[in-house]
Amino acid sequence: MLLERINQPEDLKALAVEQLDELAAEIRTFLIEKLSVTGGHLAPNLGVVELTIALHYYLNSPRDKIIFDVGHQSYVHKILTGRKDRFDTLKKYKGLCGYIKRSESEHDVWEAGHSSTSLSAAMGMALARDYLGQDHRIAAVIGDGALTGGMALEALNHIGHEQKKLMVILNDNEMSISENVGALHNYLAKIRSGKHYRKAKEEVEQLLKKIPAIGGTLAKTLEKLKDSIKYLLVSGVLFEELGYTYFGPIDGHNIPLLLETLQQADHVDGPALIHVITIKGKGYKPAEADAMTWHGITPYKIESGERLPGSDKPSYSEIFAETLTQLAEKDPRIVAVTAAMAPGTALDKFGKRFPDRLIDVGIAEQHATTMCGALADGGMKPVFGVYSTFLQRGYDQLLHDIARQNLNVIFAIDRAGFVGADGETHQGVYDIAYIRHIPNMVLMMPKDENELRHMVKTAVEYEDGPIAFRYPRMSAMGVKLDAELVPIPIGTWEEVRPGKDAAILAIGPMVSLAEEAASRLQAERVDVRVINARFIKPLDAKMLDELAAEGLPLVVIEEGAVMGGLGSAVLEHYALAGADMPMVRLMGVPDVFVEHGSIGEQRQEVGLTVERLIDEVRSLMKPRKLKDVSIRAAAD
Amino acid sequence: MLLERINQPEDLKALAVEQLDELAAEIRTFLIEKLSVTGGHLAPNLGVVELTIALHYYLNSPRDKIIFDVGHQSYVHKILTGRKDRFDTLKKYKGLCGYIKRSESEHDVWEAGHSSTSLSAAMGMALARDYLGQDHRIAAVIGDGALTGGMALEALNHIGHEQKKLMVILNDNEMSISENVGALHNYLAKIRSGKHYRKAKEEVEQLLKKIPAIGGTLAKTLEKLKDSIKYLLVSGVLFEELGYTYFGPIDGHNIPLLLETLQQADHVDGPALIHVITIKGKGYKPAEADAMTWHGITPYKIESGERLPGSDKPSYSEIFAETLTQLAEKDPRIVAVTAAMAPGTALDKFGKRFPDRLIDVGIAEQHATTMCGALADGGMKPVFGVYSTFLQRGYDQLLHDIARQNLNVIFAIDRAGFVGADGETHQGVYDIAYIRHIPNMVLMMPKDENELRHMVKTAVEYEDGPIAFRYPRMSAMGVKLDAELVPIPIGTWEEVRPGKDAAILAIGPMVSLAEEAASRLQAERVDVRVINARFIKPLDAKMLDELAAEGLPLVVIEEGAVMGGLGSAVLEHYALAGADMPMVRLMGVPDVFVEHGSIGEQRQEVGLTVERLIDEVRSLMKPRKLKDVSIRAAAD
Repeated sequence: MLLERINQPEDLKALAVEQLDELAAEIRTFLIEKLSVTGGHLAPNLGVVELTIALHYYLNSPRDKIIFDVGHQSYVHKILTGRKDRFDTLKKYKGLCGYIKRSESEHDVWEAGHSSTSLSAAMGMALARDYLGQDHRIAAVIGDGALTGGMALEALNHIGHEQKKLMVILNDNEMSISENVGALHNYLAKIRSGKHYRKAKEEVEQLLKKIPAIGGTLAKTLEKLKDSIKYLLVSGVLFEELGYTYFGPIDGHNIPLLLETLQQADHVDGPALIHVITIKGKGYKPAEADAMTWHGITPYKIESGERLPGSDKPSYSEIFAETLTQLAEKDPRIVAVTAAMAPGTALDKFGKRFPDRLIDVGIAEQHATTMCGALADGGMKPVFGVYSTFLQRGYDQLLHDIARQNLNVIFAIDRAGFVGADGETHQGVYDIAYIRHIPNMVLMMPKDENELRHMVKTAVEYEDGPIAFRYPRMSAMGVKLDAELVPIPIGTWEEVRPGKDAAILAIGPMVSLAEEAASRLQAERVDVRVINARFIKPLDAKMLDELAAEGLPLVVIEEGAVMGGLGSAVLEHYALAGADMPMVRLMGVPDVFVEHGSIGEQRQEVGLTVERLIDEVRSLMKPRKLKDVSIRAAAD
Repeated sequence: MLLERINQPEDLKALAVEQLDELAAEIRTFLIEKLSVTGGHLAPNLGVVELTIALHYYLNSPRDKIIFDVGHQSYVHKILTGRKDRFDTLKKYKGLCGYIKRSESEHDVWEAGHSSTSLSAAMGMALARDYLGQDHRIAAVIGDGALTGGMALEALNHIGHEQKKLMVILNDNEMSISENVGALHNYLAKIRSGKHYRKAKEEVEQLLKKIPAIGGTLAKTLEKLKDSIKYLLVSGVLFEELGYTYFGPIDGHNIPLLLETLQQADHVDGPALIHVITIKGKGYKPAEADAMTWHGITPYKIESGERLPGSDKPSYSEIFAETLTQLAEKDPRIVAVTAAMAPGTALDKFGKRFPDRLIDVGIAEQHATTMCGALADGGMKPVFGVYSTFLQRGYDQLLHDIARQNLNVIFAIDRAGFVGADGETHQGVYDIAYIRHIPNMVLMMPKDENELRHMVKTAVEYEDGPIAFRYPRMSAMGVKLDAELVPIPIGTWEEVRPGKDAAILAIGPMVSLAEEAASRLQAERVDVRVINARFIKPLDAKMLDELAAEGLPLVVIEEGAVMGGLGSAVLEHYALAGADMPMVRLMGVPDVFVEHGSIGEQRQEVGLTVERLIDEVRSLMKPRKLKDVSIRAAAD
């Protein structure tokens, strides 16, 4: 086993080039075996085995910087940089991160979970290097899907202009997370059929040789002509036009060719773009055959590729997509929009029923958001299905274009709350805080999948501006689904359990947690009211005022950043009303980034548990401390 | 006067094509005269007089949709659509908006103040039109600067792919707000020198005619060759590659040519791109000579172009830039970054001293933000000077790339608070709410320009992660500037006036307002403490706890969204500490979008005034209402 000898990139360099294919095969076997137990991003990593080996063989990490866009294709890099023994803990709590992680290794230089950041990172590193008179090399590996993201295009543009020395490795596997879209993709597709171009080019060059030199303008013209042939026929015209020296397209599974091209690109005194064609899932038949399904997977049987059974309940995403499809049958204005996340949001199911009414814009959340505004303005009912963490990219557009113009766009915010194994780059814990302060917004969260269905209906019927509902990355609770969908009156909360000693205001999955806490507290004769605070904005002002009038102490619990969250909204309500503030305690995600693990472990880590909630309620039940009373007396 | 007859686009159509130049001249005179009194975006509007006339002459607004990117170049459009009589009120409170404003006219179909949104809007409108079986035309006018914005590139890509019928008018005036950058710009520059290409093309075509047809592959090659010549020599290769039918470049001041080209483009069954070359400031010599200065201007003397004197005090922006320049003399790690806003942020002054250390990325806030992260990681001290409203575009990057990796990036957040005449699309009132919940962030605001200088020093010396300071769009207060710059201990507030009856926590310009309120309340024998809460994050927990211990009622006042703002932070602090909550009242920007006017009028409108602050303090001084006491007693 060659792999046994590889603990650092130096070990790799001790191998002969001829041995690298063998190593690649071993790494493939390693990945297929390990991920069959842990799950993870199999297909993307199988696609970059040779590319990653070539990068580490040619470059000298960590002196040279290798940046992986998104980072879910960094497993081979992790194997080559001393972490192969930790793959049993992949994506598990306190285990190996599924993305680049600086605290894991000096070879991990740039973390990401959101796409299209690598070129900006490379540009910043190149600038810093040159300012400081250093001379290391910088290579950014970016997929063809990520390249359609606006910030990658911004960076591509800027790098071309500044002519900084760096390498962009365009990993072109003909698909991003879902089917790729966009004209750039078509353009790459054109380039891929380069064989014909090359043949044509040779013929034209022969022809040109036969034409006698005429001198003057025409000679120059012919020079340009030759350039134009180079541009158009060999390919890379777009990148050349933007200022890059273009190499490729080359076979991304041919290590000697990769090494040779890296060397050529390294001699360029400015930005070089190496266009590498790879096959996602390469070397594992089930993954090659269906790379989309095998992008990120749960444990499977290696022989058959059969996936081990997960939950038998549908996910919240599926319930959302089914409900939307059902409503779309009767309302032709409904269109669904996704930013390359049709499978993740389950909108692929909507697209199967209404192929013309599912718009996949590629990885382009900004464009998607504003385009939804114009769709709404034009009389449609656009529903943007988007992960909480990715809608961060559309924050400005949501505020400036949609909410400011008060357009009837519906946001289905998936993966709200903790997301488990994907960890800190994907946590959906900020959407309440980044949406709540935007005027004209309505923001809801359902306590279960039945309520989610009613919220989809509520959103579709709402005609007074933008409306959003957020739901967790979870299997449904298994509650009974109402036959009829009924809109929920905007800004109304629901008392799900009566109680006269204290009240818990909870949203989403925290409602059932609150019910359990209340049920346990009943044994201590503490009578706790549980309120499903399903409208985060607008609040149920009437109910809040009634609670204050009753003088009930409150605990607000939410799976979201406590800063700027629902609890904060409740406090603001009382402070703005000028009313006496009831006792309020806040439970939510504290001011830290929460790493990967299971959702349960993440909740445990930050104290979003029944036990802590019980403690919090108990603490409110205690008689006032003497100190507090005396201070108050002194101040009065 | 032709202009007198023009009250709606129909009136324009009653004119002969030959009369349109005369109308254009009249409109220029009108703009130069009116703006000499009101100020406004002169140069951009002088540049699009003929283009706007041609668009309204050829298209039928409002049935056909004309979208202006950013919207500051919509004055001619406003003149032609019945609003010429309102130009005396341009950008004034309750007056004519300086941007597109849907409530003003049915001809205003898409509002914007942030750049690069028009193509997404056009795409959404085109989709809606086709879904609903309508057939109106859609034209988006976008500048070459705005085209480098990531979301415009995302949309350009998507439109090319979907082949929706719409017109993109690329208004290429060789500059955006500041000097344009980026490879795309270079590319456009190449295209502009189209005359040589055209001559060369003709010669090559002649040559090709002389070569006998050879048949087979070579014939096809020659066809391709001809295509390649078309692409490369005539220009537009990039747009053609992306799926657009390209027209131009054409003279944007030639109305018959514009009309002819619009007609041609209108016959395209898919996206058409008309590349129009215009001269910013056209027809007014001072503006033509220095279009950057005349982009957005204050009142001026028409004859000389002399600007009427404004404040003799420097702006906060200038104080910031000067201080940064001063610090950069001694610290070679400091680099300044701007997204096409060097003059607005006064970083042009820094650039004069350190041309190699000012990085202008063009309109690309996302890229700028992440690039700053990598610059910091590489050992530099990047300072991103950016308006509060435009940093909204970098929210995800700030959170995901900078704060999550805890990189030492400095954000100089300009135009924080109300911005006056630019109005609702530019208000800097959300940054506290969108930054405060991001872990690892430090966020400051100075009470005056002297403190701003110390904050610049504080930020430059801070080595524990990202740090931001926000400052208003105002002239400096005129306070004495300390000779020595001293870092302010992180998380410390400052008592600027003692008092024992109540405390006002204020930031930025609200501190002096609080001091005035306190001073007036002294006459009523109410003794109010004023605290400069200069750290919005982290809060001064010690001082907050002392305030609670003293039992002082508090008023928190800030020029920012009250939802998720500083007041909210104060409330959260007490609720999280589990301490007794003191009486807290919040004053800030309510949950609405505040329109254009002076900053004073905007503050008045939302009640950020001395009078209201005094009322608020007074209300806290009243003895408890009987009703409250009895409720509390009943609940205890």
